[in-house]
Amino acid sequence: MKIQLAESYGFCFGVKRAIKIAEENKESATYGALIHNSKEIARLEKDFNVGLTNDHKSFKAGETAIVRTHGIPKNELQELKETNVEVVDATCPYVTKPQQICQEMSEKGYDIIIFGDEAHPEIKGVKSYATYGARVVTIPSELEDLKLKDKVALVAQTTRRVEEYMEIANYLIPRHKEVRVFNTICNATFENQEAARKIAKIADIMIVIGGKNSSNTKQLFSIAHDNCNKSYHIEDENDIDYFWFKDKEFCGISAGASTPDWLIQNVIDAIEKNVN
Amino acid sequence: MKIQLAESYGFCFGVKRAIKIAEENKESATYGALIHNSKEIARLEKDFNVGLTNDHKSFKAGETAIVRTHGIPKNELQELKETNVEVVDATCPYVTKPQQICQEMSEKGYDIIIFGDEAHPEIKGVKSYATYGARVVTIPSELEDLKLKDKVALVAQTTRRVEEYMEIANYLIPRHKEVRVFNTICNATFENQEAARKIAKIADIMIVIGGKNSSNTKQLFSIAHDNCNKSYHIEDENDIDYFWFKDKEFCGISAGASTPDWLIQNVIDAIEKNVN
Repeated sequence: MKIQLAESYGFCFGVKRAIKIAEENKESATYGALIHNSKEIARLEKDFNVGLTNDHKSFKAGETAIVRTHGIPKNELQELKETNVEVVDATCPYVTKPQQICQEMSEKGYDIIIFGDEAHPEIKGVKSYATYGARVVTIPSELEDLKLKDKVALVAQTTRRVEEYMEIANYLIPRHKEVRVFNTICNATFENQEAARKIAKIADIMIVIGGKNSSNTKQLFSIAHDNCNKSYHIEDENDIDYFWFKDKEFCGISAGASTPDWLIQNVIDAIEKNVN
Repeated sequence: MKIQLAESYGFCFGVKRAIKIAEENKESATYGALIHNSKEIARLEKDFNVGLTNDHKSFKAGETAIVRTHGIPKNELQELKETNVEVVDATCPYVTKPQQICQEMSEKGYDIIIFGDEAHPEIKGVKSYATYGARVVTIPSELEDLKLKDKVALVAQTTRRVEEYMEIANYLIPRHKEVRVFNTICNATFENQEAARKIAKIADIMIVIGGKNSSNTKQLFSIAHDNCNKSYHIEDENDIDYFWFKDKEFCGISAGASTPDWLIQNVIDAIEKNVN
């Protein structure tokens, strides 16, 4: 079995930065999962005593709350600060950007459309910055019944596919006087996606490693699957079914932006050990 | 022969307005062809003594210069005013809009891309308002070698096809942090285009009437031809070859935004007279 990593994969700038921040703040807790990878979160707890709290109201004055990479809603950040919790912001700067755009465009009178997953923490945070509200959509048909102003601003979840973003832009532009399209899909995501596409085209089997709740990993898997129908999304080596590799010769590997190198290595070691 | 007009055709708001302005300013001259229809211009000269001058420097103080519907470059307007020529502005408000957008966006630091025909008077005028310059393109490949800023503003010639405009937008958006897309294609153009498409799909032969130098008529002809391969662009009834109608039963008719009703009627009368 030939095993080959995509040319670009795994940790992005924002995740590396967040983990460094967490490691530098021992004895603290993150508000929400720091990144969407439970294995790495367990390592931070074990090695650095960085806990995880899912209710921002449980932080007490003087305690340190690390804001997760995906950001948090504006009012929750404000409440943490008002109760004198020490806030350490590990929000990825590429997520801070759409938050700022939402606030600025909303205050300038644009209707805001966010392309992304309404239930995802990043989007809950980004949306909260739109002073006069925002609509979250994933496909153009969700725009059909909306009554929007002449001026619309469009932002995207950082981890989405640009082709799908363009479908939303293509629906809006002919129907409005001005559509201000902000390309907030991050480059790291884009590079991992392009590399996954490239290797999936030539692989017999594709393994995409990352949290099952990781948006960018799901996108990588979707791209891999579009180009190699024997594609599998796993969280770690325990999810592997070695039957998948029967009669396969070339295994491509990609990993989400929140997947640590040590976890990727474990997967490679396991395949090498168990597959001829 | 069944002859049917498209549901929307001919004179748009801006052309009607310009002709009214010309008729109200007898003994004047337009700077540049008021509209792209030589027959209507001849009528204005004959009935209202409205002349046509192609050099703005030939106007003398106290004379009246009517600015054509397509607008004129900013510096020429300024020179006319400075030499105390009385300027009557018949620029279509839908053309004034992209002029203003170019100026505002250029001064706000955006790189300006204009989708349109560099040689067309409208675009010469619109481009002149971009304080720090603008690039004019018709197809995405013309953007390939341009080094543009992160922030790009996109405007369109009022008479272009929206599908082709979207190709330019689709090239720019994934490559820039912000693309501000102004939909400056005018509704009248759009309505005439949609109506031409609809009737061309069911017609055996399509006659599109308008000046050979009229951008919007050329677009209408292109749409008609895409949907009915027996489509013909004529300026008036003298351009008709009645052989075109052999074995045809249903003739659809469309006309550009600068084509007067009397000219359309002449064409219909001629077909009715000469074709069974």
